[in-house]
Amino acid sequence: MRIAIDVMGGDHAPVEIIAAAVEWAKKSDDELLLVGKEDLVAKILQNYTYPPDRVHIISATQVIEMDDSPATAMRRKKDASIVVATRLVKEGRADAVLSCGNTGAQMAAALFVLGRFENIDRPAIVAAIPNRAGSHTLLVDVGANVDCKPQQLLQFALLGKAYASIDLDINEPRIALLNNGTEESKGNVLAVESYGLLKAQAGLNFIGNIEGRDIFSAQADVIVCDGFTGNILLKAIEGLAQAAVHSCSLELERIPSFLSKFDYSRVGGAPLLGVEGVSIVCHGSSKREAVYNGIKTARDCVVKDMVKKQKLALSQSR
Amino acid sequence: MRIAIDVMGGDHAPVEIIAAAVEWAKKSDDELLLVGKEDLVAKILQNYTYPPDRVHIISATQVIEMDDSPATAMRRKKDASIVVATRLVKEGRADAVLSCGNTGAQMAAALFVLGRFENIDRPAIVAAIPNRAGSHTLLVDVGANVDCKPQQLLQFALLGKAYASIDLDINEPRIALLNNGTEESKGNVLAVESYGLLKAQAGLNFIGNIEGRDIFSAQADVIVCDGFTGNILLKAIEGLAQAAVHSCSLELERIPSFLSKFDYSRVGGAPLLGVEGVSIVCHGSSKREAVYNGIKTARDCVVKDMVKKQKLALSQSR
Repeated sequence: MRIAIDVMGGDHAPVEIIAAAVEWAKKSDDELLLVGKEDLVAKILQNYTYPPDRVHIISATQVIEMDDSPATAMRRKKDASIVVATRLVKEGRADAVLSCGNTGAQMAAALFVLGRFENIDRPAIVAAIPNRAGSHTLLVDVGANVDCKPQQLLQFALLGKAYASIDLDINEPRIALLNNGTEESKGNVLAVESYGLLKAQAGLNFIGNIEGRDIFSAQADVIVCDGFTGNILLKAIEGLAQAAVHSCSLELERIPSFLSKFDYSRVGGAPLLGVEGVSIVCHGSSKREAVYNGIKTARDCVVKDMVKKQKLALSQSR
Repeated sequence: MRIAIDVMGGDHAPVEIIAAAVEWAKKSDDELLLVGKEDLVAKILQNYTYPPDRVHIISATQVIEMDDSPATAMRRKKDASIVVATRLVKEGRADAVLSCGNTGAQMAAALFVLGRFENIDRPAIVAAIPNRAGSHTLLVDVGANVDCKPQQLLQFALLGKAYASIDLDINEPRIALLNNGTEESKGNVLAVESYGLLKAQAGLNFIGNIEGRDIFSAQADVIVCDGFTGNILLKAIEGLAQAAVHSCSLELERIPSFLSKFDYSRVGGAPLLGVEGVSIVCHGSSKREAVYNGIKTARDCVVKDMVKKQKLALSQSR
């Protein structure tokens, strides 16, 4: 197998990317095509021993930076590493392309060089989230499309269903819509309209809305959302897991107490800001401990004279 | 202090709500005003011992259900528990109101009965997220406003700043915009436009965009986002923490291994769905382990004949 690697993309490019590719070449029988600035890549490669017949440099003279506009970059940087690497797949010279660079540019390259599936307007990125059942739940999209239309979320559902049949070996995956409540009426404009489309789609096992807290419950096999929400969500999950492990790495028994800080039952309620009185919003699923702690929050807000002080602070910041 | 409780709102209302209120009344000197259906509340209260001079029933004959439209409910259910409870605050008969019911209705009641601050179009809900520094980061909005305009996100920042000065005792809090990348150009239409407003606002210590993974890093004191994203994010954080503790509660040492499943370095890369070739998207911050595992993902997709099978599955599901 031949894998094309955009070695110029990513915060730690090219050194870390090349190091990984070399490592892979050593441990497999695959051919690695390192796409990037030829002299630079060659120089870095000198620091490694690797099978020379299976690690090749493919020249690309340009790089699309993280803050480049994908559309502009695609027009102006025709010899960019991600474009050249994607072209290798199109031409059959590589079986896959991988990049840690500008996601928008990678998607644009995939669209323009490889082309999209019939009836699919925009590609989507899928992430497999571990769940409590020990399996995975697919989240689509996690960053390819930051502004979506309902029709796209339906397509994400169809793509997710197809992918689930291959990746999870589930033929009729349960599809859910990520939302801020389970009721059909809940959500922003996009979610409400998408709900209607998903419900109406024949052959789709649409189980309705799913809230953030149930992502890990294995209630759904595929969860669809816009790429803005999905990206923030995925990174937050990773961030919390990292924070829990790192903050507590010296003392294992501290992890549960660290994580329990995130238990809403212990927080109880959240103040509504901007209104002329203390109004505490609690989770709908609150049981007595959560309500009890919500009362505590209400009390704190009153004791701190929250409304008056907020207004004072606001007037000073204008 | 007198606290009005909407005992009719929430998945576990009224029993769990009343139980919490009674518990609070016993452990404090506060007066609790239980707002709801008089006969029902009185009947449940018979199961508890409580200080009778500090637990009162306030009659409200109607209830706004979770799936009621807030606007319609406000018009039709003028004697709803959340409306009556909020009115107690307006009339000075209570110092704060708390509800586990329909959040939209609670916000509508706060807006119409209490009124909003000058120059603030819509109230926002603030949540305090524990961070790695052992303090808290404020997230605004976590559910009051599912569709937002840039001007609202600016107002969330100002509200968050005011609240931080009271709750966290920080006078010049670092304000960040939740986004799918740190670069100024990143984000959906809302985020890009909000960035401009936040940057231009005098007296605001705006530090730029923050990604999901850095929510827990204590880089910012206040993070602003639309209420749809904020709600899903907050609940997901709670859900992951719960899943980690519950899944591993019997074997403490399993928690780090459970959480490490969420480490992107171990996953490495996410496939781009819907394009005519294998294109693996990796995190920009990937180091060699993440890239190495990304190559593994690329290989798996090729071995599984992902593109062909996806198209086949898609054609069958239409």
